[in-house]
Amino acid sequence: MIDPVVLKGFRDSLPKDEIPKKRIIRKLEDVFSSFGFVPIDTPVLEYTEVLLGKGSGETDKQIFRFKDNGGRDVAMRFDLTVPFARFMASHHDEVGVPFRRYHISKVWRGENPQKGRYREFIQCDFDIVGADNALSDTEILSLMHTSFMALGIEHYTFHISHRGLFSLFLSKLGLEEKSIDVLRTVDKLRKIGEDEVRKLLTDITGSSDKAESILSYITAGDGRSFMETLEELERLSGGESEASKRMREIYSMLSALGIEKSFVFDPSITRGLDYYTGIVYETFLDELPSIGSVCSGGRYNDLASLYMKEKTPGVGSSIGLDRLLAALEELKSPILHDTATADVLVVPTAGMESKAMITAEKLREKGLNVSMYLLPDAKMKRIYAAAESGAIPYLLTVKEDGISVKDLRTRETAEGDEAIERILKDRKN
Amino acid sequence: MIDPVVLKGFRDSLPKDEIPKKRIIRKLEDVFSSFGFVPIDTPVLEYTEVLLGKGSGETDKQIFRFKDNGGRDVAMRFDLTVPFARFMASHHDEVGVPFRRYHISKVWRGENPQKGRYREFIQCDFDIVGADNALSDTEILSLMHTSFMALGIEHYTFHISHRGLFSLFLSKLGLEEKSIDVLRTVDKLRKIGEDEVRKLLTDITGSSDKAESILSYITAGDGRSFMETLEELERLSGGESEASKRMREIYSMLSALGIEKSFVFDPSITRGLDYYTGIVYETFLDELPSIGSVCSGGRYNDLASLYMKEKTPGVGSSIGLDRLLAALEELKSPILHDTATADVLVVPTAGMESKAMITAEKLREKGLNVSMYLLPDAKMKRIYAAAESGAIPYLLTVKEDGISVKDLRTRETAEGDEAIERILKDRKN
Repeated sequence: MIDPVVLKGFRDSLPKDEIPKKRIIRKLEDVFSSFGFVPIDTPVLEYTEVLLGKGSGETDKQIFRFKDNGGRDVAMRFDLTVPFARFMASHHDEVGVPFRRYHISKVWRGENPQKGRYREFIQCDFDIVGADNALSDTEILSLMHTSFMALGIEHYTFHISHRGLFSLFLSKLGLEEKSIDVLRTVDKLRKIGEDEVRKLLTDITGSSDKAESILSYITAGDGRSFMETLEELERLSGGESEASKRMREIYSMLSALGIEKSFVFDPSITRGLDYYTGIVYETFLDELPSIGSVCSGGRYNDLASLYMKEKTPGVGSSIGLDRLLAALEELKSPILHDTATADVLVVPTAGMESKAMITAEKLREKGLNVSMYLLPDAKMKRIYAAAESGAIPYLLTVKEDGISVKDLRTRETAEGDEAIERILKDRKN
Repeated sequence: MIDPVVLKGFRDSLPKDEIPKKRIIRKLEDVFSSFGFVPIDTPVLEYTEVLLGKGSGETDKQIFRFKDNGGRDVAMRFDLTVPFARFMASHHDEVGVPFRRYHISKVWRGENPQKGRYREFIQCDFDIVGADNALSDTEILSLMHTSFMALGIEHYTFHISHRGLFSLFLSKLGLEEKSIDVLRTVDKLRKIGEDEVRKLLTDITGSSDKAESILSYITAGDGRSFMETLEELERLSGGESEASKRMREIYSMLSALGIEKSFVFDPSITRGLDYYTGIVYETFLDELPSIGSVCSGGRYNDLASLYMKEKTPGVGSSIGLDRLLAALEELKSPILHDTATADVLVVPTAGMESKAMITAEKLREKGLNVSMYLLPDAKMKRIYAAAESGAIPYLLTVKEDGISVKDLRTRETAEGDEAIERILKDRKN
């Protein structure tokens, strides 16, 4: 016997988890499609050099990397952004720009597993490439908003900021050279708190005054409205700029759409990664701030610089689907609630199999999901247990002299055509 | 610059392929759900020993196998059956039996790539475990039938046979010991032809008479109806048996469902794999027999014997989705035809971005997929090209004094509310 064990950091997905996960993915796909976003897919395995860039000699512990049977240095994708960059370099002319794509798929990282973190997890990315204007920035934000609404999440806030604006401010302080270090430090604010950030910034900038200035920049949103914050940051970064104008335009469009209340200007949002150049954002669930951002991204001015000379500016976003699912679970979201495996369980009495199959088929034609109980000789107790474990509300018994239906929630019964009417009516409600 | 190349045997999926692929997967999922089948997922990576069994010391060239950063001997799944067996051993009590599951996901094999064969491809498996009767056999067959209908495939034939019946026949010939070799040889009939099979069978059995007997068994379906074939095979295998009774029951249920015409009794179907014990089947597209079987499977009496003592009998089927897609492509199937990325392309004239976004949002609320053209200053030629490449039928221009719609197929135009009515009406048809 072999122990049927899965690898550390990996897990099976049982129907009770997989059904709502698929439901959520479908809803997101429908929303993405309604915005004209199209799906793509890329290989799970790629050349390591393609995923990591040149000079990736030493093994990165975070990725699953190996030599294949042909001796090629290959790796499993660790995100969907790098494959998308490679994809755009390969198919730029074929797909045309502006190009909107979504990609919902697994990625792998060899991180140390901890609560809610796995080595195999699902990313959901959506990007617009080939357009750099407020219209496309706003479309991504509006799409995020529509997605969260579609998932039935009620209380969420998008925290947005602008990296270009922050860069202007850092230049004014003479800190261009140190901007990456500063960004990464500011990015930790939520995790390590203001005092720790102040200490680190003092170390980096060599000046407690500068550290204080940065802190007043990144906390400028506290107690201020979106527009007040924008004006304050404009002042701190040396007056009106392309970046501040962009933010004004975006806010005006969000207001026209009537969704501006879900967005706060939060200058502490920087995103650690250095490729962002425009708006950046993170999304927090108001009732579960502790789980961190469930949807993040921003604008970059060149996606595929590793593979092509042509510039591909874009704006995109990524939902950490597993983290979001865990959150919805904790919030007891109705979208996870319905794990019914069928609308009705059809039970043939012995010898009535054919008749039961015909009955089931007729119910399917009416749009119902119908599960046939496959052991005609089973005891009623076992049949009830099957209905319960599959969260199936109706039991339909096919006997020689007709059919009867039992509503397992109310224990009400009905016979014949009336029985079927009852299930159909319930389904329609 | 890094060459944005993908590995040999791997490929990107562009929207024109990914859109119909997702449509097909959704249709299959809906059919599976309508039969009460539930989805599961398993890790892409597993312990090599779990996937290959003990004594898998030497490297199997067919699989992607490596040592992970923790020194574990791991491999990427090469099918969905072995992970399902392991899953059932892990979660038998939790999911309960009878259990119906489907799993549509990628698998990887290091085979030499050739036309239509890739190292990364999608399998679609559906199984019923925990029931061994004609009812569950018929349910799988009926589900296959419903699936093919749902995909709009018109001409297909399910070739079914029964391994138990063939075993009885081989016993009668005194060939129990050689049955695996015989099965594998018969399985090649379509590929290498009758003469070659006769030669091989003579070698295996050491008798040209026995070879001839086997040939007359496996060709007993030629020119005979289902029931005639069954009777002939019953005769050849020594009279009525559990196996022949099962086939009779299945045929009677298929007839009750009115779908028996899609099934032929083809005793040359054996499936090479040795774990099948009952019905076995392959599916051929009448217009494209050369591509081989697009949906195959059978009954096994023990799925998870590698991992658990309890027996898990089952019956299941696997659709090679990539092969099916290639076939549908060749058949110019309507299901692949519609690759429209949206119902309407909304084009804002300069300064009308907010108004255009509001218009787009209203159309989405009415159920339309709406793509916003993101470059308000673009030339009309480029806008038309975008609509065409996205197969979008309507262009809606948002101007200061109102909106206008153009049907890009008929060149007809309309203004204002009438414009929107026209798109909605078209959508409903």
